[in-house]
Amino acid sequence: MRVERAQQALQECGADALLVSSNVNLLYMAGQIINGYVYVPITGQAILFVRRPKGIEGANVSYIRKPEDIPAILAERGVAAPSKLAFEADFMSYSEYTRVAGCFADTELVNGSGILRSLRAVKSEYELDMMRESARKHDMVYAQISEMYHKGMSDVELSAAIESAGRKLGSLGIFRIGGSSMEIFGGSILAGENADAPSPYDFALGGAGMHPSLPIGANGTVLEPEMAIMVDMGSNFTGYMTDMSRVFAVEKITNPLALRAHQVSIDIQNEICKVAKPGVQAKALYELAYSIVEKEGLKEYFMGHNQQAGFMGHGVGIEINELPVLAPRSRDILCKGMAFAMEPKFVIPGVGAVGTENTYIVTEDGLERITHFPQEIQII
Amino acid sequence: MRVERAQQALQECGADALLVSSNVNLLYMAGQIINGYVYVPITGQAILFVRRPKGIEGANVSYIRKPEDIPAILAERGVAAPSKLAFEADFMSYSEYTRVAGCFADTELVNGSGILRSLRAVKSEYELDMMRESARKHDMVYAQISEMYHKGMSDVELSAAIESAGRKLGSLGIFRIGGSSMEIFGGSILAGENADAPSPYDFALGGAGMHPSLPIGANGTVLEPEMAIMVDMGSNFTGYMTDMSRVFAVEKITNPLALRAHQVSIDIQNEICKVAKPGVQAKALYELAYSIVEKEGLKEYFMGHNQQAGFMGHGVGIEINELPVLAPRSRDILCKGMAFAMEPKFVIPGVGAVGTENTYIVTEDGLERITHFPQEIQII
Repeated sequence: MRVERAQQALQECGADALLVSSNVNLLYMAGQIINGYVYVPITGQAILFVRRPKGIEGANVSYIRKPEDIPAILAERGVAAPSKLAFEADFMSYSEYTRVAGCFADTELVNGSGILRSLRAVKSEYELDMMRESARKHDMVYAQISEMYHKGMSDVELSAAIESAGRKLGSLGIFRIGGSSMEIFGGSILAGENADAPSPYDFALGGAGMHPSLPIGANGTVLEPEMAIMVDMGSNFTGYMTDMSRVFAVEKITNPLALRAHQVSIDIQNEICKVAKPGVQAKALYELAYSIVEKEGLKEYFMGHNQQAGFMGHGVGIEINELPVLAPRSRDILCKGMAFAMEPKFVIPGVGAVGTENTYIVTEDGLERITHFPQEIQII
Repeated sequence: MRVERAQQALQECGADALLVSSNVNLLYMAGQIINGYVYVPITGQAILFVRRPKGIEGANVSYIRKPEDIPAILAERGVAAPSKLAFEADFMSYSEYTRVAGCFADTELVNGSGILRSLRAVKSEYELDMMRESARKHDMVYAQISEMYHKGMSDVELSAAIESAGRKLGSLGIFRIGGSSMEIFGGSILAGENADAPSPYDFALGGAGMHPSLPIGANGTVLEPEMAIMVDMGSNFTGYMTDMSRVFAVEKITNPLALRAHQVSIDIQNEICKVAKPGVQAKALYELAYSIVEKEGLKEYFMGHNQQAGFMGHGVGIEINELPVLAPRSRDILCKGMAFAMEPKFVIPGVGAVGTENTYIVTEDGLERITHFPQEIQII
């Protein structure tokens, strides 16, 4: 079915084949990670060109040593050389591109990354069930957080405890992010002022991290009363990720601005749930959020304070940053089967990051929230 | 000093500037991760072109919104446009390449990935100290493994316990691997027959993993007597990784072939330590190892049984797979300051993976082993 959808997309863009090469898209198209390629002709069966592992069987599997082996195998299989080949230009390195282009001398190569991004944005029922399962486990991990806390604990120690709880429940651990400049381990916990430390990465919020080699998230801050402790830890139990942030506090948070901003984040999501449905523009959701933020006078704290992010939501699936993007210039339109996270967050100087993040599925009628852990600030 | 070494390498290859764009190489050249580029002209100061984070100061820092901003800033700074620009062709996506190439219309772009790979292969004393520190913590984590074990434990549970111990000692968690097709979480534990499951990834050994979305390492095998339990978990405490594998066994392993092969792995490393020094070819080390393997009649088990790897060692540093490569066709020559892992392993059907892996530093006189945990099979 995924191959058929890819073939339809090829028809729409006038290409006659798609060469899939990234692990995430190989997983998507072939149902497993291989070292090799999936070749999707505009009609007929997709072909798996496999370097490794040994032992994959099927009429549509051909073993190769190098991409240069592909044209001869296509010819043997009676598949005509493509005149216009879509490939993963946003992913494939220039070096690999030159080799692939050398295999298809009379072929025009065009960027097929957008095709795959659009396909993956709309999930099947099977994929949505994988996401619901990850969300269910995600809830179970967050439900253990209050027991993990002990006096004097640092953000990093809390992170390690959450990671460990996830692994015990079957988390695969791996956190997949699109884009070569993005990196993170496990997720992010931002306690107090660290929420305002700018990061080079394109996540919603920053954090200094523990070391210059990974400047994101927890930085060793000891958790104390009146700090907002934003927990935004990953969840990948099924190959499909979910995204959820919650705020915890040791004993109490009393700062009125922080308490109000936290509630506004929940209100924004509730307001968006009233209007979001198939056909609605993703940017309209951002605009609705922003109009509430402006009305509440919280603009300077929205999506960061020292450094502000330009989006407040993003698709999730095999990777944590898929389509749609909820941002002012997004061209994405909601479709049934999309899954995305909304994270209207605020960074309040002296307190930290507040607000919640939830993963939603676009249904025929609106949004289904799949992350159910209570949204109120959790006292630990 | 790194900039000076890069400038010398540019001179040798006839390029007049180097554009650094990958996180690992930005970290290497700038000492921190930025979203942006480092531009190294053949003479003079390197320039940091930064998109994020906010707040980096220095005469050699220019903020940009997009790569297209670079030429005008170079002109303002009085830096001539390069006639031959080395860039990270093995890393940069084709899409980004087309944008960068568009910025330098009269410039020839050449592949600079090899320059950076060669530079990073030879570590400074500071970098080697970072590696020794990671190795010291690596030893401390492995020393806790026997206490972690409980009857009925699975390989995945043991992995989670080791990960958690590492995080408590300050591990950054992140496991950096070069090459877009490589993925792993935490490292690998191979218990019994799972060591013989082929993987799509280019690691020394395989393992089925827990899920088709990450087919590597531990697969849920319950640890039992007479199984070889190979622990090959990552260690990144300083931005610099070390690599170490050890074999554990519940109560006992009595299979004579497995016991002998384990000792041969240690012997191979000891023999190599007698001859390895600056000027020796990396392939000669592989050949020496292979000659011992042949003499011992262990060829069919070397570096896997069902699927065999074509190397038995690799450089380590910021990433787990740097130069030199210890493989039959390697052109690398040992230099003082290199750091590499040797892992002559054997997969014995019915028992599992045996042998050890250690990280070594090339000194003036030979090899310094920096991973010190005992090499004998550890009974737990």
